[in-house]
Amino acid sequence: MRTIKITISYDGTKYSGWQRQNNAIGIQNKIESAVKKITGKDIPIHGSGRTDKGVHAYGQVASFSGEFSIPTQNIATALNTHLDDDIVITKAEEVDNAFHARYSSVGKSYIYNIYNNSYRNPIMRNYSYHVKKDLDIERMQLASQYLLGEHDFSSFMSQGSNVKTTVRRIDEIRIGKNNKDDIITLYFKGNGFLYNMVRIIVGTLIQIGNGKREPEEMKRILQSLDRTQAGPRAAAEGLFLNEVYY
Amino acid sequence: MRTIKITISYDGTKYSGWQRQNNAIGIQNKIESAVKKITGKDIPIHGSGRTDKGVHAYGQVASFSGEFSIPTQNIATALNTHLDDDIVITKAEEVDNAFHARYSSVGKSYIYNIYNNSYRNPIMRNYSYHVKKDLDIERMQLASQYLLGEHDFSSFMSQGSNVKTTVRRIDEIRIGKNNKDDIITLYFKGNGFLYNMVRIIVGTLIQIGNGKREPEEMKRILQSLDRTQAGPRAAAEGLFLNEVYY
Repeated sequence: MRTIKITISYDGTKYSGWQRQNNAIGIQNKIESAVKKITGKDIPIHGSGRTDKGVHAYGQVASFSGEFSIPTQNIATALNTHLDDDIVITKAEEVDNAFHARYSSVGKSYIYNIYNNSYRNPIMRNYSYHVKKDLDIERMQLASQYLLGEHDFSSFMSQGSNVKTTVRRIDEIRIGKNNKDDIITLYFKGNGFLYNMVRIIVGTLIQIGNGKREPEEMKRILQSLDRTQAGPRAAAEGLFLNEVYY
Repeated sequence: MRTIKITISYDGTKYSGWQRQNNAIGIQNKIESAVKKITGKDIPIHGSGRTDKGVHAYGQVASFSGEFSIPTQNIATALNTHLDDDIVITKAEEVDNAFHARYSSVGKSYIYNIYNNSYRNPIMRNYSYHVKKDLDIERMQLASQYLLGEHDFSSFMSQGSNVKTTVRRIDEIRIGKNNKDDIITLYFKGNGFLYNMVRIIVGTLIQIGNGKREPEEMKRILQSLDRTQAGPRAAAEGLFLNEVYY
């Protein structure tokens, strides 16, 4: 048996997310169809984690195992010929059979784009969250520091996932603004993220950036372990799964 | 009579271009419909120039004149409520009745994005031209210098437009690469550009960047005044009308 690790970049705009939802097709299903085309077999693929409807990826990782003859160095190109132009396999490697895209992962990074301008941005409309009110990124940077390190992030988790523990470690948060195009980019790196955790953190940071809340409140919100204390979940279209670490 | 100058940003992916082509709708038609909704009148709008199918704009300019009561400061927002999310009016100003978006223009700038990687990029697929072969941007920068200044750019013009003269002046060309995302961005600023001129220049620079031609050949190509000497026209999706100067 061979186990293949693939790295995937996708535009999540027209999908139900990584997984199928009701009648809408998932990115995973598209890749499984492509795997069937190149191996002739129904082989399930395992992602490093789900992404929601409208969320994108620069470097999602998935793995699949089975008996098939195609040489590893041809897999990425072969799969790509069977995928639409909004999904691309950028790498395929043969890995140990013990490898599992989800359980072997030791960390992830995410990128979140905010378009901060009073007008819409037609080019970035599917790849950023439009926030009209001026955001002070220094306030957001200040607030983000309370989140670094190991904490129980229950305040920043949506219902709907089963997890053994709500403790996670955030190693790095960077918030920068490109004044030329009014894009604020937030970068998060940690050992793992709870369901909707990045989007709820961003939603809370936006309330701090626009002056509705003070940077210091972040500490209290975190310690409350109460989802209702944090801000709303920021829109899916701004979020990119950037990299999965093993 | 009032004359209004509007600045427009659009994602050209699903349109026939600025103008209507056969049965496909143009961006101009969409804006004219919106103008009718807010003024109650059929008022033609005049763009600074056409953009082709698939070409985008950060700062296209158009103007229209007529008798209507809506205050100028409300025009952009009012038009935007009648436009799809891939077209946005970012500014509306009342200008002298002698103003004409095309004839009053004294210059333009364009941006062209190349995605230079052996794999496709799902996120940038509609906003960049995918070039698989490695491009040497120093060679492209060297070649671009021959184009600066006032020249007859006949070698870089597609058939299909009526112009009094094929002489134009290019004031600035900048070519940079963001190694993080493999995007090569080319910036062109000049007093005007012939039909497809930027795309043919980019197509020629790509042949120089990939080693097919030498940077010094650009001089001979320019002087030949012969379209067949230049490279192919680069794809529409990489091109953005950046700004129109008055």
